[in-house]
Amino acid sequence: MLKVEHIGIAVKTLAESVPLFEKLLNSQCYKTEVVESEKVNTAFFKTKDTKIELIESIEKNGVISKFIDKKGEGLHHIAFEVDNIETEMERLKNEGFILLNDKPKKGADNKLVCFLHPKSTNGVLIELCEEIK
Amino acid sequence: MLKVEHIGIAVKTLAESVPLFEKLLNSQCYKTEVVESEKVNTAFFKTKDTKIELIESIEKNGVISKFIDKKGEGLHHIAFEVDNIETEMERLKNEGFILLNDKPKKGADNKLVCFLHPKSTNGVLIELCEEIK
Repeated sequence: MLKVEHIGIAVKTLAESVPLFEKLLNSQCYKTEVVESEKVNTAFFKTKDTKIELIESIEKNGVISKFIDKKGEGLHHIAFEVDNIETEMERLKNEGFILLNDKPKKGADNKLVCFLHPKSTNGVLIELCEEIK
Repeated sequence: MLKVEHIGIAVKTLAESVPLFEKLLNSQCYKTEVVESEKVNTAFFKTKDTKIELIESIEKNGVISKFIDKKGEGLHHIAFEVDNIETEMERLKNEGFILLNDKPKKGADNKLVCFLHPKSTNGVLIELCEEIK
């Protein structure tokens, strides 16, 4: 794990949360991106090495909508940047962690990603990500 | 907000979670600390500029126990390092955010800290922290 690449926050609407986080972080949202594979809209903020990613569901029954229904808006996941995602997935699998996808998939922000099941990580949804070169 | 100083994770017991996070992060816990004012035990990991702080309640009815009863183990707060905590508290108060303490208080890891009420921050418990010089 090289660093905390970003922290994902589930929000009901980017329209309301982007201005709120601009005030909170005292910095402008520098990018929004639709992630079709996950059916979400995302908005990014920079704080030194770690990004803050706000996530809004596109669909009523998407994973983010379900998360908000269950737990309310708030912290959703931590993403760690790794050198080689396949090597790290193999290492974690061998350590007993449950991977949510067998192969890296295309995520937001030009990344290959893999999620770990929160059941195996103390309730924390962990994302591994590697920049696509 | 200079950077994400640490991410706080609520756990039932450090005895179980420290070895789990050592495997997950592939790095050793480098420090544990009792924070009497908050009635918690903490354990720290380094990932580049951002620390991961595991938090265990000392008391059955402490804030961390209550958090786990309600939401389960998992992501608890994000701490942002700031240059001058009093200036930043003033700025955020003027922006309409609700501060959970009026004056900075002594937190873990040699820091002055202030928390923002999650009601005003999209459900995310935010900590401001400034290193005590």
